[in-house]
Amino acid sequence: MHDVRVAILGATGLVGQEFVKILKERNFPMSSLRLLASGASAGKRILVGNDEGEVEETTSESFGGIDLALFSAGAGASRTFAPEAVKAGAVVVDNSSAFRMEEDVPLVVPEINPEDADHHHGIIANPNCSTIQMVVALYPLHRVNLIKRIVVDTYQAVSGSGKEAMEELANQASALMEGKMVTPHVYPHQIAFNVLPQVDVFLDNGYSKEEWKLVQETRKIMHADGLKISATCARVPVHVGHSEAAHVEFTKPMDPGEARGILENSRGIVVFDDLDINLYPLAQSAEGRDEVFVGRIRSDASHPNGLVMWIVSDNLRKGAALNAVQIAEELTKRNLI
Amino acid sequence: MHDVRVAILGATGLVGQEFVKILKERNFPMSSLRLLASGASAGKRILVGNDEGEVEETTSESFGGIDLALFSAGAGASRTFAPEAVKAGAVVVDNSSAFRMEEDVPLVVPEINPEDADHHHGIIANPNCSTIQMVVALYPLHRVNLIKRIVVDTYQAVSGSGKEAMEELANQASALMEGKMVTPHVYPHQIAFNVLPQVDVFLDNGYSKEEWKLVQETRKIMHADGLKISATCARVPVHVGHSEAAHVEFTKPMDPGEARGILENSRGIVVFDDLDINLYPLAQSAEGRDEVFVGRIRSDASHPNGLVMWIVSDNLRKGAALNAVQIAEELTKRNLI
Repeated sequence: MHDVRVAILGATGLVGQEFVKILKERNFPMSSLRLLASGASAGKRILVGNDEGEVEETTSESFGGIDLALFSAGAGASRTFAPEAVKAGAVVVDNSSAFRMEEDVPLVVPEINPEDADHHHGIIANPNCSTIQMVVALYPLHRVNLIKRIVVDTYQAVSGSGKEAMEELANQASALMEGKMVTPHVYPHQIAFNVLPQVDVFLDNGYSKEEWKLVQETRKIMHADGLKISATCARVPVHVGHSEAAHVEFTKPMDPGEARGILENSRGIVVFDDLDINLYPLAQSAEGRDEVFVGRIRSDASHPNGLVMWIVSDNLRKGAALNAVQIAEELTKRNLI
Repeated sequence: MHDVRVAILGATGLVGQEFVKILKERNFPMSSLRLLASGASAGKRILVGNDEGEVEETTSESFGGIDLALFSAGAGASRTFAPEAVKAGAVVVDNSSAFRMEEDVPLVVPEINPEDADHHHGIIANPNCSTIQMVVALYPLHRVNLIKRIVVDTYQAVSGSGKEAMEELANQASALMEGKMVTPHVYPHQIAFNVLPQVDVFLDNGYSKEEWKLVQETRKIMHADGLKISATCARVPVHVGHSEAAHVEFTKPMDPGEARGILENSRGIVVFDDLDINLYPLAQSAEGRDEVFVGRIRSDASHPNGLVMWIVSDNLRKGAALNAVQIAEELTKRNLI
């Protein structure tokens, strides 16, 4: 295994910054790191471990000599630059939605389907944040008792929409507490002290794009074409950490104790489930952590084969940057870069 | 119809204050209003329309000459004083959970089962906030196409826990924005910029009491013993206004357009459902309003007879005080007080 020449596209964004942090934390075998962003950020210096790196403007020439390109600059940038990076010989791990549902692009969660990466054609897609944490929590159960249907409602943090959204929440919260009016910019409505039943744009079928990602990406990652899924995705005034209430219907009955045992022995999962001491997963305590936290595991009173649970994870880490770096680690392990 | 001598128990609380406001707003035919609370609040003066009223300490003698007693001082106070009030000749409309599931106590939402009030024995129970808004939205659909199962997840405002909880949210939000640590008092964990998958205490079956109220109260109000319901109730950092994501399974397919038409013509409901202009119900816009707001109505992609919708209402008004006053109005209309 050789050391890897890495580029990050979107290096100044929330997820880009997490890429840098996580590559360092995990001692990813890098021989070099190129920081790419839009022209507006060119020349900025950002922290890379104890050093500083200078941000360069992304061009079609940016990927010469790069082995691995981690992309998180939106679907538009991915569509423009991923083919260039691949042409230059890099493998792209793309955090945008641009290629996720393309048939020849693997959509990978390393705990679930690392082998799908073997068949890549230059691009490997990183799933959506709300999808990743749900499949990490549900797949170990699915393996022993096939899931037939999932009803899931989300409580998503504003960091999923980027830095401006985090500032909007903070600014609105301050203003409202001083009795001032607020005008929304990033979101269509006030997000502070409010709940928006909209994440991303709406589709013709009445679902939002975020809700539909949960449906389609889950099926693709779990190789479960017939899996039925319904979701409502909502944005809540939380900085970091997505929470999800999942109601899961299995083929056969599943005892909550059995589910707890399976999850406790599954990679990347921490079970926080002790009602006597009010222990359950919280967005606040998931922030900065790598794991997917699962709790409130109970039999579904409305379905003989049902379980209900509460799933929380840091949307910038396992929901985005960490999962992408774990994909990169799989690629090095499998000699795919 | 004679004018009614009214007492409010819990007059200084959030719901008590709404009782006073709503009785005045709706010109409830009162000949007198007695304001009752705990000894600690005795002597306090509170606004009643353009006048002031003095709060008295509640004793077993407080209900002499009272026709209607509106209770919202917790289940303990209700258990102590409701029998006294009934003995003194008053009819009690009780907002606590103390008597809701007792067989001889009607549990009433005036849009749904006003006739149940006819059989009262002195106490009529006001349902829980999260139940009321859900049944108002679902019952008109149930009447034309029987509902078999409901999966609902809630996003509940802190005002449901009283004044101290509202202060806790405001104080924590301020402190956190100044970079200070916070210590929770009302809730077991930080509520500002967080989501708590706990409303009320937990039961042996793993559900919280709030979740179980949604199950049992819905069945009782809708006279639907076999209705299957599963819920996860979560507290979100919102001051006023509960939001609910409901996934509803009917006996036969139900077109979203048909559902919209039925709801638009139902009492107490406003349909806010135009995705082209990002119009859907919001906690923020429901605050201070009487109606239950319904939107995001769409076919459930995971069930042939399913609909998904988003239901929001002011938890202090329709979820508590308004519904109780509407029950009182039914009582006067039906000559039951």
